[in-house]
Amino acid sequence: MGEFDLIKRFFTRATPRAVLGVGDDCALLQSAPGMQMAISTDMLVSGRHFFPDVDPRALGHKALAVNLSDLAACGAKPLAFTLALSLPAADAAWLEPFSQGLLALADAHGCELIGGDTTQGPLNICITVFGEVPRGMALLRSGAQAGDDVYVSGNLGDASLALAQLLHERGDAPATQALLDPADLTLARQRLEQPTARVALGLALRGIASAVADISDGLLGDLGHILERSCVGATLDTALAFALLDIRRYTPQTRALLASEALRQTVLQHVLSGGDDYELVFTSPVSQRAAVQAAALASNTPVTRIGQIETAPGLRLLDAQGRLLDHRFHSFDHFGSQQE
Amino acid sequence: MGEFDLIKRFFTRATPRAVLGVGDDCALLQSAPGMQMAISTDMLVSGRHFFPDVDPRALGHKALAVNLSDLAACGAKPLAFTLALSLPAADAAWLEPFSQGLLALADAHGCELIGGDTTQGPLNICITVFGEVPRGMALLRSGAQAGDDVYVSGNLGDASLALAQLLHERGDAPATQALLDPADLTLARQRLEQPTARVALGLALRGIASAVADISDGLLGDLGHILERSCVGATLDTALAFALLDIRRYTPQTRALLASEALRQTVLQHVLSGGDDYELVFTSPVSQRAAVQAAALASNTPVTRIGQIETAPGLRLLDAQGRLLDHRFHSFDHFGSQQE
Repeated sequence: MGEFDLIKRFFTRATPRAVLGVGDDCALLQSAPGMQMAISTDMLVSGRHFFPDVDPRALGHKALAVNLSDLAACGAKPLAFTLALSLPAADAAWLEPFSQGLLALADAHGCELIGGDTTQGPLNICITVFGEVPRGMALLRSGAQAGDDVYVSGNLGDASLALAQLLHERGDAPATQALLDPADLTLARQRLEQPTARVALGLALRGIASAVADISDGLLGDLGHILERSCVGATLDTALAFALLDIRRYTPQTRALLASEALRQTVLQHVLSGGDDYELVFTSPVSQRAAVQAAALASNTPVTRIGQIETAPGLRLLDAQGRLLDHRFHSFDHFGSQQE
Repeated sequence: MGEFDLIKRFFTRATPRAVLGVGDDCALLQSAPGMQMAISTDMLVSGRHFFPDVDPRALGHKALAVNLSDLAACGAKPLAFTLALSLPAADAAWLEPFSQGLLALADAHGCELIGGDTTQGPLNICITVFGEVPRGMALLRSGAQAGDDVYVSGNLGDASLALAQLLHERGDAPATQALLDPADLTLARQRLEQPTARVALGLALRGIASAVADISDGLLGDLGHILERSCVGATLDTALAFALLDIRRYTPQTRALLASEALRQTVLQHVLSGGDDYELVFTSPVSQRAAVQAAALASNTPVTRIGQIETAPGLRLLDAQGRLLDHRFHSFDHFGSQQE
């Protein structure tokens, strides 16, 4: 099957919103008056961002979800995306479920596939996503101010726990303890492989949050981007870390194990620096606490207040007794060099 | 060196035109009133689209040029682009010239780097480019009408000749005759590795051309896209093929060899189906001949009239005596299956 047939078969859809969709040299998009276009791109590489044998349907979902997560962090409404695919072979048995997972999520967000490129090579998925946001309303990383609250959405650490255990089971990681029961691994693995982009929350936080970032590389690293661009610091309450795991859905055995004193540091590491959560970390003035709760309710997304923005630069972590932790948690860096 | 340092060091520039550039979750672009956004994406894979040891400066140029070529085919003015890079290692000695080649071309077109992604993996470059075009003025593939002239810009076949010879020299291809003298290979290789996107011609053809495509996969294949989407056919005069090569710049020996009867079919194959030319193929009404010449002059881009659009579907090739060629020229397909 030729390249063009492949594209047609799995990826050509109606694009009622775009002026012109797949099939010409360019796609055409028209912004509504008063709107700005938010643009983000993410590349997923086999063996780096996903296991080569991952369920292609889940991979299709994740490839778009990680991009939608960037739109969410910007408070932008998804409009459209392009897909560039490098594939070892034109394999319909892989492309069909991949396109189904991808397009099901696209449909759920009204996000149209308007163009792309397909080539032969090592498996690589590059998506560029387009959203719209009223002029001047985009949520940025740079607006946090001393005194603002720090929040995270949803759960943190489960994806990282799943990844560690899967690597362990595959023999790809140094032997670590298996922390999750099989049923819990299934649960956590879904967080890893089919993350939920917090688009509705991002939209609801327009005009309320002072700064937002999505958590792809771990809470500390991504909050660090907010602090750096806002020229502020923060103190976080790590006593909440255990509760940030999707812990209510785990079996009593797993809960007990993860809550044990011996695993405190390990659990903290997963929650604070694990990566692949695709939640939002955001700040907002104390005067907006009720508005934040209303935004959380309206978007059906739990949020947890975890700290405070301060003038002093840097990131301080407090334990349950309010003592400063001498932390050395590392954020995820794709080139393997570790960053604090 | 970490990922973030790398990005900062080589790719962070001022982005006066974008509302928000590199460094947040999304970039923000604002369309001017009455403008539509033209969008295209191209992925270049090492060993498939370029030799792994190609000059990184030339590669940076080409990665953007092939995308600008899509904007040219749409008649869109370049605005901005995103860059997603998968790299085996964070190698400054490679990244510096790559970024220089890329950004020099970007600067020449006023096209701003507004965002991106960097990850570790097999070398892969994915660029998504944004241009603007007044509403309703985009040049499409679908507007060719019976009676229209068919034109190509610039030269065709030289890139393909260079690629064949380079593959031959590397022992990567079945032994073929070396057709180009060393000096001519240098010339043709520049066409292969540092193509010129016909942006100025594309802009000049707004309101004049009835259909346009860029020639990335060979003239016959890309003209075929125009014919298919316009529901028409065409007849081309292949007697012009030899003259479409950048032949005036070749040495007399190479000219004599390429003009020989024995190589007629080979030369035709390179010119008509070679790929990697990044010229424009376009159609326009006979009444616009003077306007086409004026557009060519204004954009300093040679154009050659090579045929006529007809009602009868399909593509017919005539030889110098006006006889129908029983052609079997193949267009380039990234999955290696051949298409006529």
